[in-house]
Amino acid sequence: MSGEDAPAEQQNAVDQKQETKPAEEPKAEPPKTEPASAAAAEATATPAATTEKVPEEETFTYRALVLTGYGGYDKVKLQVKKGKPALKAGEVLVRVKACGLNFADLMARQGLYDRLPSPPVTPGMECSGVVEAVGEEVTDRKVGDKVMVLNRFGLWQEVAAVPATHTFLIPEGMSFEEAAALPVNYITAYMMLFDFGNLRPNQSVLIHAAAGGVGIATTQLCNTVKDVTVFGTASASKHETISQGGVTHPIDYRTKDYVEEVRKISPKGMDIILDPLGGSDTHKAYNLLKPMGKLITYGTSNMLAGQKKNLLAVAKNWYHQFSIHTLSLIQGNKSVCGFHLGYLDGEMELITQAMNIILDLYKQGKVKPRIDSTWHLEQVGDAMRKMQERNNIGKVILTTEPMPEEEKKEEPKKEDKKEDKKKDDKKKDDKKKDDGKKEEKKDDKKKEEPKKEEKKEEEKKEEPIKEEK
Amino acid sequence: MSGEDAPAEQQNAVDQKQETKPAEEPKAEPPKTEPASAAAAEATATPAATTEKVPEEETFTYRALVLTGYGGYDKVKLQVKKGKPALKAGEVLVRVKACGLNFADLMARQGLYDRLPSPPVTPGMECSGVVEAVGEEVTDRKVGDKVMVLNRFGLWQEVAAVPATHTFLIPEGMSFEEAAALPVNYITAYMMLFDFGNLRPNQSVLIHAAAGGVGIATTQLCNTVKDVTVFGTASASKHETISQGGVTHPIDYRTKDYVEEVRKISPKGMDIILDPLGGSDTHKAYNLLKPMGKLITYGTSNMLAGQKKNLLAVAKNWYHQFSIHTLSLIQGNKSVCGFHLGYLDGEMELITQAMNIILDLYKQGKVKPRIDSTWHLEQVGDAMRKMQERNNIGKVILTTEPMPEEEKKEEPKKEDKKEDKKKDDKKKDDKKKDDGKKEEKKDDKKKEEPKKEEKKEEEKKEEPIKEEK
Repeated sequence: MSGEDAPAEQQNAVDQKQETKPAEEPKAEPPKTEPASAAAAEATATPAATTEKVPEEETFTYRALVLTGYGGYDKVKLQVKKGKPALKAGEVLVRVKACGLNFADLMARQGLYDRLPSPPVTPGMECSGVVEAVGEEVTDRKVGDKVMVLNRFGLWQEVAAVPATHTFLIPEGMSFEEAAALPVNYITAYMMLFDFGNLRPNQSVLIHAAAGGVGIATTQLCNTVKDVTVFGTASASKHETISQGGVTHPIDYRTKDYVEEVRKISPKGMDIILDPLGGSDTHKAYNLLKPMGKLITYGTSNMLAGQKKNLLAVAKNWYHQFSIHTLSLIQGNKSVCGFHLGYLDGEMELITQAMNIILDLYKQGKVKPRIDSTWHLEQVGDAMRKMQERNNIGKVILTTEPMPEEEKKEEPKKEDKKEDKKKDDKKKDDKKKDDGKKEEKKDDKKKEEPKKEEKKEEEKKEEPIKEEK
Repeated sequence: MSGEDAPAEQQNAVDQKQETKPAEEPKAEPPKTEPASAAAAEATATPAATTEKVPEEETFTYRALVLTGYGGYDKVKLQVKKGKPALKAGEVLVRVKACGLNFADLMARQGLYDRLPSPPVTPGMECSGVVEAVGEEVTDRKVGDKVMVLNRFGLWQEVAAVPATHTFLIPEGMSFEEAAALPVNYITAYMMLFDFGNLRPNQSVLIHAAAGGVGIATTQLCNTVKDVTVFGTASASKHETISQGGVTHPIDYRTKDYVEEVRKISPKGMDIILDPLGGSDTHKAYNLLKPMGKLITYGTSNMLAGQKKNLLAVAKNWYHQFSIHTLSLIQGNKSVCGFHLGYLDGEMELITQAMNIILDLYKQGKVKPRIDSTWHLEQVGDAMRKMQERNNIGKVILTTEPMPEEEKKEEPKKEDKKEDKKKDDKKKDDKKKDDGKKEEKKDDKKKEEPKKEEKKEEEKKEEPIKEEK
C-alpha cells in the first residue's frame, strides 16, 4: 500500500511548508526540523480528496490515519491511500464505520508500545464496520455482515483487510459506535475479572480510572456478580456518573489518599485490584490486598506524562517498577497478574470465548458501552488529547463519516450532553488546556528533553494524575 | 502447661545422659553439647508412663511430641505433660487419634518456618480425634463428636485444646487416619486450583511431587473437572500409582528434563503450574506457562537439603529466588501466586468454605486421602525421614495408639502393601539410608556448618531431588 499526505487544511497554519506539500509527494518521515504543534495533527482531507474516491480496483482510494513518527498529537496524520487492500485467504475487507481509541494508541504515539511496527504505520486496535469483500476459505462471514474487529494495529482507516477470525458479528440493536467501543475494553475487563481475578459473590474490587473505558466495562461486569462492592477512583466531577454506573464507593484520588479511603471502609483491604497505573501505585495496590487477594496490573500509564515521551516519567516508572519475590507472595497468600490484550493476539480462541459471553451479557442488557465522544478522523489529535488529559467518561470514538465543512472546528462531532461531563470539560478548560499549550510551546524548542513543567508534575507526588483508559 | 521428658527407652543408647534424666526435671532446651542421633528421636514413653494416666484434673497426664531445638530428626522428643489443658471460651478439648505430617513441620524442625514459636514447642498443624470437653460459647460441637482439626501448631499430642472454629466434623465412613490426612493437603490443593488457579475444563496442570500429599490431592481435584490434563513429576517407581490416581503424563524428573518432557507433549506450555520447590524451578515454571497461565508457588522445599538446616541450600534458594517485574507479567499475560495455609490462619471463613466443598466431594467418592504409612509417636523421627527423603506415596500419619512392645522397631505401624511402594522402599534402603547415616555422623562433629555431602548435592544441578509434600 502506498500512501500520500492529503492536502491538509491547517487550523493553525504554523507549518506552511507542510500545508503546501504536493498531493503526490511520496510518503516519508516528516523532516526532523518540522515544528510540532497540536494543530498539525488536525490535518483534514480536502473535499477534493474524498470525492475523488472511485470504486475501481486501480483507482480505489481511502483515507487512513498514519503515525508518521513518535511524538505529540500532530504525529498522527490523515492521508489518502491508493489501491484496494489485497485479501489473503481467511481475510475479509471491512468498510470501517467507527474506531475505538485506547491507551495503547497513546503510548504507541510516544514510542512506548512495542506491538506497533515502526512508523509510518496506521494505528488502531478496534473498529466496527461492514464486510465489503470476503477472501478465500472464509465460510462464516459474508458481504454485508456488520462486524466489530480486533487487531494488533491498522484499523484507523476507512477500509481494512483483517483475518475473519478477528471479527465478531454485531448483535441486533448495537450501534457502530458501541461496537467500536466494545472489544478492547470489555475483553480486557472480562479476562481480568473472570479469568485472573476469579471474581465471586461478596468480593470487593478496586478499579482505578473508573470513568475510563476499561473502568466502566469493569464496573458493569462486577455488577453481574451478586453483592460485589466496587471502589472506583475518579476525579470528583465524575462521581455522580460512575455511581449511577454501579461504583459503590467513588474516591477522588486528586484530593484524597485512596489507600486511606479504602482502608476506612474495608480495613482488611481488597479481594481484587485492577491497576492500569504502574510504578508506585502497583506497590500500594499490593499492600492493599487481602489474603487470597489478586492484583491485576494492565498498564503503565503513569509513564504517560505530557504529550510526548517524557524520559523522566519513563525512568521513574521503570525505577519504581514493581518487582515481587515469591516468598512475599507465599507469606501474604497473594497473586500478581499482568494483562495486556495487545500481547494476546495469538490467542483468538480465548478471546472469542470471552467475546461470546460479553455479547450474551449485552443482549441481556447487563453491559452497554458508554460513549464519551465521537470525533472525525480529522480531529484525532483532539480525541487523543481528551483521553490523555483524562477528561473522558467512557469511550472516545473516531468516525469515518466525512466531516461537514461547518463542523471543521476543534469540537467533537457529538458528545454526551450529561451535566457532570460538561462541568468536567469546563474544569479541563480552566486547568488543563493552558498547561497543554505551555507544554506545546516548549515542545517547539526542546524536542526530546523532558520539559520543566513535566518535571514539576513528576515531583508532585501527592497528587498524581491518573488516566482513564 | 508444664512438660517433662518421659523416661525414654532409647533404641540406640548413645545418649546415656538424657536417658537417665529424672522425670521431674523442668522442661528446658537440651544442652548444646548433646550429641544428635537419629535414634534419640525415637524416644518412647515407657509403659509405666502411659499407665500412670488418671482422669483427674490434677493428675492428668498426656504424651506430646516436643521440638526441643532446631536440628535433625532427634530434636523432636516424646514427653509426658502434666495437667489438663484449660479450655478458653470457644475452645474444645480433642482427644487426638491421628496426626498428619507436613513439609512445614520438616522446615520448622530446621528453624525454617516462622509460624512455629521458638522451641520448646509442640508441632503439628492437623489431626483427627474426638471431642472430650467443650468450652463456653461453643454451640456447634459436643462431647463425642469426631472431628478433624487444623491449627497453626500444637497438634502432635494426645490431647489438644483448639478453637471450635478450627474443627470440622468427620463424615460417616472416614477413618481417623484419613481425617488426619485431609485438612492441610486438600485445602491447600483446593484453594490453589480453584481460587488462584481458576481451573476450567480442557486446561493443563503441572504438578510437582505428584506422589506427595498435596500432589495426590491436587490430582484428584483436577479429575473433578472435565478434560483436564495432568502432568506429574515423580520418581519412576511411583509412576504406576500416580497414573492410576489420575496423572495423565507422569514424568521422571530424576532422569529427564521435565521442561523438555512437558514441551514435547504440550508445546505451548501449561495453564497452571503448582510449584512447591522454589529456587530455579520457579523460573522454569514461569517460562513454561501459556498466555493467561498461572504459576502457584507454595513452598521452598529446595531449601531442605539434608537432615539439618543447610545454610548453603538456604542461601542458594534465596539467591535463585524468583522475582518478577510487572512489565514481564503484562507482556506475557501471566499470573504468579503464592500460597501457604500456615499464613492463612486468620481466614477460617475461607478455609471452612473450601473444607465444606471438599467434604462434599469426599461423600460423592471423588476425593479420598491416600495414606502412605502410619507411625507411632515414638517413631516420629522415622516418619519425618520417610517424608523428607521423598519415599512416601501419599500421606505420612502419626497415631497416638500406644506402641506394642513387640513393634518397638524402626518399622512403621502399618504400611500400604502395594508392590510399587515396596520396591520404592527397598530403593530407599539401598540408596538413601546410608547417605543419611553418613550425614548424621558428620552432624555430631560440625553442628551448624553445611556438610560436605550436602555441598556436593547442591552442586549436582542436573539431578535435583524434589520432595513430596
